[in-house]
Amino acid sequence: MPVLVMKFGGTSVANLDRIRRAAKRVGVEVAKGYDVIVIVSAMSGKTNEMVGWVKETSPMFDAREYDAVVSSGENVTAGLMALTLQEMDVPARSWQGWQVPLKTNSAHSQARIEEIPPENINAKFGEGMRVAVVAGFQGISPEGRITTLGRGGSDTTAVAFAAAFDAERCDIYTDVDGVYTTDPRICGKARKLDRIAFEEMLELASLGAKVLQTRSVELAMRYKVKLRVLSSFEEQSDEAGTLVCDEEEIMESNIVAGVAYSRDEAKMTLMSVADRPGIAAIIFNALSEAGVNVDMIVQNISEDGRTDMTFSCPTDQVARAEKALLGIKGEGGLNYADLVADTEVAKVSVVGIGMRSQSGVAAKMFKVLSDEGINIRVITTSEIKISVLVDRKYMELAVQALHDAFELDKAA
Amino acid sequence: MPVLVMKFGGTSVANLDRIRRAAKRVGVEVAKGYDVIVIVSAMSGKTNEMVGWVKETSPMFDAREYDAVVSSGENVTAGLMALTLQEMDVPARSWQGWQVPLKTNSAHSQARIEEIPPENINAKFGEGMRVAVVAGFQGISPEGRITTLGRGGSDTTAVAFAAAFDAERCDIYTDVDGVYTTDPRICGKARKLDRIAFEEMLELASLGAKVLQTRSVELAMRYKVKLRVLSSFEEQSDEAGTLVCDEEEIMESNIVAGVAYSRDEAKMTLMSVADRPGIAAIIFNALSEAGVNVDMIVQNISEDGRTDMTFSCPTDQVARAEKALLGIKGEGGLNYADLVADTEVAKVSVVGIGMRSQSGVAAKMFKVLSDEGINIRVITTSEIKISVLVDRKYMELAVQALHDAFELDKAA
Repeated sequence: MPVLVMKFGGTSVANLDRIRRAAKRVGVEVAKGYDVIVIVSAMSGKTNEMVGWVKETSPMFDAREYDAVVSSGENVTAGLMALTLQEMDVPARSWQGWQVPLKTNSAHSQARIEEIPPENINAKFGEGMRVAVVAGFQGISPEGRITTLGRGGSDTTAVAFAAAFDAERCDIYTDVDGVYTTDPRICGKARKLDRIAFEEMLELASLGAKVLQTRSVELAMRYKVKLRVLSSFEEQSDEAGTLVCDEEEIMESNIVAGVAYSRDEAKMTLMSVADRPGIAAIIFNALSEAGVNVDMIVQNISEDGRTDMTFSCPTDQVARAEKALLGIKGEGGLNYADLVADTEVAKVSVVGIGMRSQSGVAAKMFKVLSDEGINIRVITTSEIKISVLVDRKYMELAVQALHDAFELDKAA
Repeated sequence: MPVLVMKFGGTSVANLDRIRRAAKRVGVEVAKGYDVIVIVSAMSGKTNEMVGWVKETSPMFDAREYDAVVSSGENVTAGLMALTLQEMDVPARSWQGWQVPLKTNSAHSQARIEEIPPENINAKFGEGMRVAVVAGFQGISPEGRITTLGRGGSDTTAVAFAAAFDAERCDIYTDVDGVYTTDPRICGKARKLDRIAFEEMLELASLGAKVLQTRSVELAMRYKVKLRVLSSFEEQSDEAGTLVCDEEEIMESNIVAGVAYSRDEAKMTLMSVADRPGIAAIIFNALSEAGVNVDMIVQNISEDGRTDMTFSCPTDQVARAEKALLGIKGEGGLNYADLVADTEVAKVSVVGIGMRSQSGVAAKMFKVLSDEGINIRVITTSEIKISVLVDRKYMELAVQALHDAFELDKAA
């Protein structure tokens, strides 16, 4: 029988009523003839509670014990989901990570999946089990200890199972009903997308759209797993939600798929740095060692052998960045006139695979912003994305204007 | 290095502060040179919460899923205890049942322990680990699924580990500071015992003293595990608490070790039953099939070929017993004039291995009760125990009078 993977996040299994509602959705797919693998998160709040206990107990905790503790919430929901399905006369059983086994490396608390041998679960499907309920987020290390996959690990678990079992699709049930052209909270015209390409979803996820974890999208793209995002709080049809898929499966699409934004950006500028080889390496190596996540980097045109070096990073890393840069002043001949931090900026991006073949997107974006009187502080581009830093007070206006200009409220 | 097993119940690990307090006790024993196996329960209340979820989800639940769910609380405390010990610089790690592995049969939710191979844990002791923190109450079935051991399972886990690792002693930390001659709440003169024999502890446990689970005492007796009961809420010396041990290790003891009582007893009498072979079998077979736990049984002297048959059972099983007995009226020639239930009785027992060699204990007991004007309804005896049913209103008086008469407030 064809296999379907269905993943339910913490809010979708937050209590017994919601577990029942999710189980009904599973029952619908079983009735269609699928063998279903259900991946569950812990009830919302449970994992955070346990993380709190671990950190209070041991600030520099042993990650192996952290994993043993924080993985327990998923075991509870997996068992309860299996029982709920059994009550509906659907043959189901729960599986903990080590029982599958979901094999990972030994990088505790952020383990990578290495292998999911399908034999054990397939044997049970062969005996008439229709649903394998798997505790998400957890696996087993080569040493036989419990590992966890890090934030968003249950999405990644779901995609990995879909790949290992050659599933027809991987449905991610969540508290939103799909992927939107932009955040509906700041743009009333935001439109739910029926389909989006993996690459676009990846860019949107890394730009701050919180629907799917970047890692799960990467995995889906690599193994060509059709990923569907849909709401667990609405009645669903086969066409509900948003399908994240290979671009070949999208017949027509807008040049721009969506507009993303990130509020927590800061712009830092090192004024009047000597413009010679090795200087950039010193600066960004120091920032990297200090754990600063540098995003955009721009270097001005050199004048008299000196230049300004600008980069952006999350607002809450500004102090760390300043400390790191003060620490290397003078090192390897690095000196600079001043270090200026601007924490009143935001990043606005347009994303779309159509940009590859269509020129003029950047020009249009800059004109739209200019027409609104919005000054662009920094620009970076990739093959399918253009990002700009603007003053934060203009962020919402910029999103709305770009959404209008690229006509994202209309389907292709 | 010699091995010590220490078990902490739910109230002893109810929060992070209490886990720290328990860990300090473990640290004391490690400092003495022991390799320690710590068995932990779930934080108090957690297991009951999960049992509630399972029963609400599925009243006739699949016991395999029940076990997968309700075993999760112990995993949390095991990890937190290991982290707490590490913070104190004590090399420790947590073990879940399947990791040890603690092998059980497949009787889910009331599994029996079959084997605890010590190799894995001993290998880690050999590498310098000083404490193995084991999640109590759980094991793994031959099919590779999680099992639980039933009520009081963590005590049983602790004793089984002590046997498997040939531990010097098994210390059960709980919320009382030992085993008393009787319940201090109803007899102010109750005295903590320094030592008590396995057989006596077994009788007291089955008679309602809640300090230790009967099953763990049976196991300790079979494998000659020295069991110590002591409080996790007090500073402890090597001589604290009560040692439950082989009777040879008790030099001097009172003839009577303790007085136990049970409030929830009912007395039922079948009046004027035909006194011929097979009648008792019919009656008690029917009660057994109805799930009635019959305790004491007394048959009156026969008159004119008829007799009265009296038995006791828990108060909340009276309705079930009545139904069962009405159901068999007439069957196999069984008839009786009347069925009388008295739910206003209580059981009072004296227990002591000294009774084996010392006669006159029963006579003394009956005289004490008679002197207080307490009428005895039913009597049963075993080698080391005498139990009587009395009117419930006299229960406390009976306990106090017997405690005085056998001078239990004084050590031997």
